[in-house]
Amino acid sequence: MKTTKNNSKLRIIPLGGLEEIGMNITAFEYEDSIIVVDCGLAFPDDDMLGIDLVLPDISYLQRNREKVKGFVITHGHEDHIGALPYILHEINVPIYATKLTIGLIEHKLEEKDLLKTTKRRVIKFGQSINLGHFRIEFIKTNHSIQDAAALAIYSPAGIVVHTGDFKVDYTPVFGDTIDLQRFAEIGKKGVLALMCDSTNAERPGFTMSEKTVGKTFDNIFSEHREQRLIIATFASNVDRVQQIINTACKYDRKVVVDGRSMVNIIATASELGYLHIPEHTLIDINEMRNYPPEKVVLVTTGSQGESMAALSRMAAAIHKKVRIQPGDLIVFSSHPIPGNEKAVSNVINELCEKGADVIFQDVHVSGHACQEEIKLIYSLVRPKFAIPVHGEYRHLKAQAKVAHELGIPKESIFIMKSGDVLELDDDGAAIVDHVETGDIMVDGLGIGDVGNIVLRDRQHLSEEGILIVVLTLERSGAKLLAGPDIVSRGFVYVRESEELMEGARMVVEDALELCLDQGITDWGKLKSAVKDSLGSFVWQRTQRRPMILPIIMEA
Amino acid sequence: MKTTKNNSKLRIIPLGGLEEIGMNITAFEYEDSIIVVDCGLAFPDDDMLGIDLVLPDISYLQRNREKVKGFVITHGHEDHIGALPYILHEINVPIYATKLTIGLIEHKLEEKDLLKTTKRRVIKFGQSINLGHFRIEFIKTNHSIQDAAALAIYSPAGIVVHTGDFKVDYTPVFGDTIDLQRFAEIGKKGVLALMCDSTNAERPGFTMSEKTVGKTFDNIFSEHREQRLIIATFASNVDRVQQIINTACKYDRKVVVDGRSMVNIIATASELGYLHIPEHTLIDINEMRNYPPEKVVLVTTGSQGESMAALSRMAAAIHKKVRIQPGDLIVFSSHPIPGNEKAVSNVINELCEKGADVIFQDVHVSGHACQEEIKLIYSLVRPKFAIPVHGEYRHLKAQAKVAHELGIPKESIFIMKSGDVLELDDDGAAIVDHVETGDIMVDGLGIGDVGNIVLRDRQHLSEEGILIVVLTLERSGAKLLAGPDIVSRGFVYVRESEELMEGARMVVEDALELCLDQGITDWGKLKSAVKDSLGSFVWQRTQRRPMILPIIMEA
Repeated sequence: MKTTKNNSKLRIIPLGGLEEIGMNITAFEYEDSIIVVDCGLAFPDDDMLGIDLVLPDISYLQRNREKVKGFVITHGHEDHIGALPYILHEINVPIYATKLTIGLIEHKLEEKDLLKTTKRRVIKFGQSINLGHFRIEFIKTNHSIQDAAALAIYSPAGIVVHTGDFKVDYTPVFGDTIDLQRFAEIGKKGVLALMCDSTNAERPGFTMSEKTVGKTFDNIFSEHREQRLIIATFASNVDRVQQIINTACKYDRKVVVDGRSMVNIIATASELGYLHIPEHTLIDINEMRNYPPEKVVLVTTGSQGESMAALSRMAAAIHKKVRIQPGDLIVFSSHPIPGNEKAVSNVINELCEKGADVIFQDVHVSGHACQEEIKLIYSLVRPKFAIPVHGEYRHLKAQAKVAHELGIPKESIFIMKSGDVLELDDDGAAIVDHVETGDIMVDGLGIGDVGNIVLRDRQHLSEEGILIVVLTLERSGAKLLAGPDIVSRGFVYVRESEELMEGARMVVEDALELCLDQGITDWGKLKSAVKDSLGSFVWQRTQRRPMILPIIMEA
Repeated sequence: MKTTKNNSKLRIIPLGGLEEIGMNITAFEYEDSIIVVDCGLAFPDDDMLGIDLVLPDISYLQRNREKVKGFVITHGHEDHIGALPYILHEINVPIYATKLTIGLIEHKLEEKDLLKTTKRRVIKFGQSINLGHFRIEFIKTNHSIQDAAALAIYSPAGIVVHTGDFKVDYTPVFGDTIDLQRFAEIGKKGVLALMCDSTNAERPGFTMSEKTVGKTFDNIFSEHREQRLIIATFASNVDRVQQIINTACKYDRKVVVDGRSMVNIIATASELGYLHIPEHTLIDINEMRNYPPEKVVLVTTGSQGESMAALSRMAAAIHKKVRIQPGDLIVFSSHPIPGNEKAVSNVINELCEKGADVIFQDVHVSGHACQEEIKLIYSLVRPKFAIPVHGEYRHLKAQAKVAHELGIPKESIFIMKSGDVLELDDDGAAIVDHVETGDIMVDGLGIGDVGNIVLRDRQHLSEEGILIVVLTLERSGAKLLAGPDIVSRGFVYVRESEELMEGARMVVEDALELCLDQGITDWGKLKSAVKDSLGSFVWQRTQRRPMILPIIMEA
């Protein structure tokens, strides 16, 4: 860590997704040094039609490229690492994270052929790294993925503790409990600001230990000895998978793993020693037919009702290897993420219709801290300023309320929006600026070539369809050589609405002839005439407003 | 009731929406008599793009028009009455229902100018009507709308008890508790089949009384005396509104009502005596400014996050009369209906961002029976056959499980699908036939002119947009007079993708020239050539598959 005059301030700039759940990337800036904590992507909202994923706008980092010292990653979930492969092209600096997190990142880099060009370093809990003016210490936490870290970010302006996503699990399935002592020690030193996970800040109480799910699995396996078991869960929750494997061994079942992300993560986690699979436990999906149903448990993706995931394909009877049979027991070891409830329910209905039994309640615990855990961290860290992070606005606000109840004055609590620049040191904190941020939408190979106008068109097309009016004018412009022809898509069954479509054609023809008779040959005016006449005809007849697209050609 | 030889069977035919929650309409047929229980509409699923609402396919009733004696309606919710205005054109028979239900139906008929041509009759609880071979008795129940009835349907083949939507409320806000004695009496006579509400069949225990929400309101009013209160709930839950009004009077607040459906239902319910509003309690929304915020409670629609409802417009700051202020307390007296969770959450976020406090938990009770209530009804009615109704497949199945636990053999429990024909009498029951049913989609004024092909097109357009290729051929067919021009919508920003679009144009031009050089002038072949060449070019460059629509004109 460089020494420096101590009158500069620390700047904290969330660059995407404090309000939208899902896209975590925050810049910490002190003089000529920037570090970036996490680099996540988001999955599109319902109104982002056809969009595959959303990336943060990193133009601020691009403008300050020479300052950026590294990416410091708290854990391996998509909303914390997913944007790295896209952003490393622009900002090629080293990545620092714990072992499993680096393992998962490497898998992504490999897919995009970025392994050779990207520096990365595995950091152990308790270890610190120096990046420019910053020193960053990794602190052990618990979460729904292993090797999750909180960060103590030491700057000349003071210490910021960033919890990452966390919960307090006194009896973790793998590894140690959260290092509460270290939080306390750092708290004793005096902490400038705490950035704490808000996801469950609306929920009173304490999040249950991951181990309690193991007991539930034991009950389920014990009570359903005659049925094939299919358990859907999050691919990245390796501890959950471990507990399924343990229970399968106890009840003498073979384990089959299905779903691409599940297979990948299990491979990475086993290789790195985070998952222990006894020999002869795992069998290939093709071997399943050699075992009676009650001797098998299938672990699969699709717990969120994602349409292409393995479980959804089973439910829809389009899975190539697995057919749901009456008597199968399907367990959702998950809770629907907001927005996925209907999709999950549809999958449950399909499974029930095929005669399967479905268990979907109380086979899951959250990976995020509830109010009592949040209070615990605040009480150990005792920060001067509170900056709730990770969650929708309502969750940030709920944490703000908790922090205030613990005695932090309202003016010392900052609910930041993406792009806000918070400047702070021991003397005070204030939002002093706002930098440009936003959602970069990815559709296929295109990054950022679909924007709001395109989305608005898609929305319009999706609700009302399109009417295309084509006509060819003589080059002189005064005479109609061909058309107007009207072609529709997504509007009505043309065969059953012939009379409507013929009426529409005549309305357009009349409007065009009127224009041409009056010597109007300006294409803009002709197009307006087509849009107006056809639009009002269609509205009157159907009370719909399809997109109307006049196309004029010249021959 | 006509007398008849007793060797015919009763036929029960659900005509829409046993599997899809929402569209309740069931035909009961005995020889030359058909009665129709309920006549509901459904709201579109997410994948029914641009559809406003969904009606049942009543072609079976149309084919048997002369048999249909009447509509018997259990209660006034949209999914039980909403299709009447559309279907009365086709099947104009009298409507039988309780007072408030008829009141709500009349409001609908008036809007469609059907009041004069539709016979309707108000039936009291305990009263029976004779319709052909059937006698139908109305039995008092409790539900989230007043005047809900169960039906005892007497036919020569036996008695069927249909609960409608119900719960058991021992302390209803208005009127009597469910008439359990009558259920018992009819049970004593011997009941052939019970058709029982399944909505909450997955939930153990008992649904709480509506009155418990009144206590919660009291707490909220008492604890927030300094804030303006805005309470969102279901317009049709008049008892809920009554309790808000009562609490407002107690705490000396004026009540403002907002949202079209809320205003309508309150007017109907007051007029018919189902809602009691003390004088000087209700004020117009325009008078609100004359009172300090803490002296007002606003009751509004929008508890499901519906984009055009009053609360959503307040949250989005586009409401004409109400602006959310810091310090406002918004109460969601509701639970999100599956599929609406995200929309509700978005509204909560918007409200929080405007500085409002939001309460959204535990200010609602369900209107549907949980498992213990379902068991109670089964135990009073003791039916020979069980036909779970109202709910998704998973809910019907959950009730089937409950019924089986109560001793009804599995082969006497029927989970029916829309169109299934269940034939039953004392000797047995079986699904013997299947009649055509389906979803009739309504889009604007068009009923049934949007079908699966149109929806598939809308889906495609919504995800990938459209590329339109227009060209004009010489009438002889061998020469290109104009074009090819490519126009896109919902695909990419053309300005930022000029090079892509120019490349696309050249690819199409090459493909066309190749065809024309080879003397290919068949329009079908030319269109295929355009689609293939452009499709593969675009996929290669963008990994997207927009709809490609070639339009050829002749001049």
